[in-house]
Amino acid sequence: MAKRTTKKTTTKKTASRAKSAASADRDKKTQAKIVALADEIAKRAFSKKEPQLEIPTRSRSNTNWNKRKGILEMGENTSTRQLFDLKTAKQFMQTCLHASTIKDLIGADKTSSLRGVFYKAKHTVAGTKENTFDTQQESDPILEDLEVALGALREELHIFAENRGSMVGNITIVDKGDEIDCRRMGSGGYALPSIVEPDVIQFKKCEADFVLHVEKGTVWNRFNEDRFWEKNNCILTHGAGQPPRGCRRLLQRLNQELKLPIICVLDCDPWGHYIYSVIKQGSISLAFESTRLAIPQAKFLGIRAKDYKACGLDEAVKIDLTDTDIKRANDIAAYPWFEAKKHWQKEIHLMLDNGFKMEVESLITKDISYVTETYVPERLAAKDWLD
Amino acid sequence: MAKRTTKKTTTKKTASRAKSAASADRDKKTQAKIVALADEIAKRAFSKKEPQLEIPTRSRSNTNWNKRKGILEMGENTSTRQLFDLKTAKQFMQTCLHASTIKDLIGADKTSSLRGVFYKAKHTVAGTKENTFDTQQESDPILEDLEVALGALREELHIFAENRGSMVGNITIVDKGDEIDCRRMGSGGYALPSIVEPDVIQFKKCEADFVLHVEKGTVWNRFNEDRFWEKNNCILTHGAGQPPRGCRRLLQRLNQELKLPIICVLDCDPWGHYIYSVIKQGSISLAFESTRLAIPQAKFLGIRAKDYKACGLDEAVKIDLTDTDIKRANDIAAYPWFEAKKHWQKEIHLMLDNGFKMEVESLITKDISYVTETYVPERLAAKDWLD
Repeated sequence: MAKRTTKKTTTKKTASRAKSAASADRDKKTQAKIVALADEIAKRAFSKKEPQLEIPTRSRSNTNWNKRKGILEMGENTSTRQLFDLKTAKQFMQTCLHASTIKDLIGADKTSSLRGVFYKAKHTVAGTKENTFDTQQESDPILEDLEVALGALREELHIFAENRGSMVGNITIVDKGDEIDCRRMGSGGYALPSIVEPDVIQFKKCEADFVLHVEKGTVWNRFNEDRFWEKNNCILTHGAGQPPRGCRRLLQRLNQELKLPIICVLDCDPWGHYIYSVIKQGSISLAFESTRLAIPQAKFLGIRAKDYKACGLDEAVKIDLTDTDIKRANDIAAYPWFEAKKHWQKEIHLMLDNGFKMEVESLITKDISYVTETYVPERLAAKDWLD
Repeated sequence: MAKRTTKKTTTKKTASRAKSAASADRDKKTQAKIVALADEIAKRAFSKKEPQLEIPTRSRSNTNWNKRKGILEMGENTSTRQLFDLKTAKQFMQTCLHASTIKDLIGADKTSSLRGVFYKAKHTVAGTKENTFDTQQESDPILEDLEVALGALREELHIFAENRGSMVGNITIVDKGDEIDCRRMGSGGYALPSIVEPDVIQFKKCEADFVLHVEKGTVWNRFNEDRFWEKNNCILTHGAGQPPRGCRRLLQRLNQELKLPIICVLDCDPWGHYIYSVIKQGSISLAFESTRLAIPQAKFLGIRAKDYKACGLDEAVKIDLTDTDIKRANDIAAYPWFEAKKHWQKEIHLMLDNGFKMEVESLITKDISYVTETYVPERLAAKDWLD
């Protein structure tokens, strides 16, 4: 069956993999922003002012809910990092170090992982026993600070996180010049990369009417094995739990550029509701990039608190809510975007009244393919979802 | 750029997706084994003997190191589960329940996740307050027991785990009838499924000389971005940490069927050594399927304890060994397959003498592409690896 040849692979695609004009232009802009940041520091130093950086504050108190746009946004507050202030000197130095690494990355046209950037900057300061960084937990927030301060996304800073999630369905994409037919991806699927900006990934032929996004890879397998995407003319994605930025950004691009509705099938528990909230409105720590990540029109199809009765599920699917779950559910119910919506208040309070949560997998107690052949198609037909 | 059409996707591939003769034959055999298991119980009952099951014991004491084959194997010990014994009655019933679910799965030609099988069997026993299963932690080992008792792998029982890992490189595979060219998979790659048996995945054209397996997705990104697999004519895989069974099985098939050496790039720490050990010799809990998973010829290319000096790395890459690390390193050094090998004793003891561990990412302190352009190519050319 297997055939091995000794012929070397030709590299026909090299041309199309060369840096696109759009990507070169984007990189030039980001480089200019880093240089401006450094120039500002130098200018202050030469005019005998304290070298310092202004960093917008990423905190709950500086996060606002934009009702009209339906997304979380960052406020106007900033904090100052000064070279000659014992409290902020280390962060000042760390911010400059990472800015320098990013400039090198862009210059070399390479990308690096968060951990890679941490290692690149980590060293013992000459003549001292002080490390620039001790742990990656110190390093990652500095990179988020730089995103905000430079007004450039992590992707634009050439930094990626762990890849997570897969996609199949009625779409063809181009990824770094390679054409990938997501209708022909077998049981494994196309692995979602961390950077999915238009200069890396372009959409080609797409017949799909919507995107079905499920929480877990194991649930995705059920939908893919039953060829749900083919029968229901859609794209099928998962993000292996809380979807990483690459997955959220790709969903947003599918929504904005191809006008595809994003319909989520998540667990009926506070974690499922939180995942939906992040997909829809953005998160507090990444509020500065909600406009690039949030999908205000995203729908929550299920699992719903009413499904225990509506689907006639077995007693055994109930998982008792813990005290933490109850606290978390009340917190989520008080989010301004959930608070304003009667149907969401009803949903969360029905779950609390039930006293139990339910996973998507619990539908298997009806039948192995109940979720793909009955549950989701019926809800789609009835437009029975929350938004 | 994006083009949406309203034409429905045709399902040309349906024929090639129909159940293959090999897969039908395999399923028939597994079904027969389940029926034989049930018949044996019924036969005992009708002849007024206690209904019981014999389950091979999956424990360290029943695991043997087969030096000639270079793999871990399960011994001959078994334990008995009886219907009329209070201690084993529940496990007897759980084993029968799961066997019945698996028979249904095979009959319907569907697969299910571990969690799905748990839900399928979970219910309250009629007339009591006793659940068949309370948690998935009770359910998963019963499935492993059935694998051993039936002499059938999880894949043959139609059960899958979470998908994890990706692949790119100079190979074309066929996955459920879809031809996938792993040379054209962009930045994301082909997502490795959980079930990779020959009736699901076949190898087609392959020019690669070897497989480079790296520990983490972020490191894999570096190698893929630098197109290492193209320059070095290989296949590039990762398993997102400890590789799951699907990834290990695929590596073994690439090794056995295509005769490709499997070369691992893992961290220089007890966890990296353990991952290598599992890839090479198998694990205790899955010793019964070492012959289908272990790759005795797998090589460990790095990171090596000598690399701190050999590569002239910065002080900052050192991560102190904790007491747990030291204990774990000594445990691993005492594994019979490591104990017998002088070079592995030297490697582990040099790491202990160093007093620190190092991650693959630490090489970034030399240069962003040092690992792909210098480190790995030099070690490959010098055949400088451990086995």
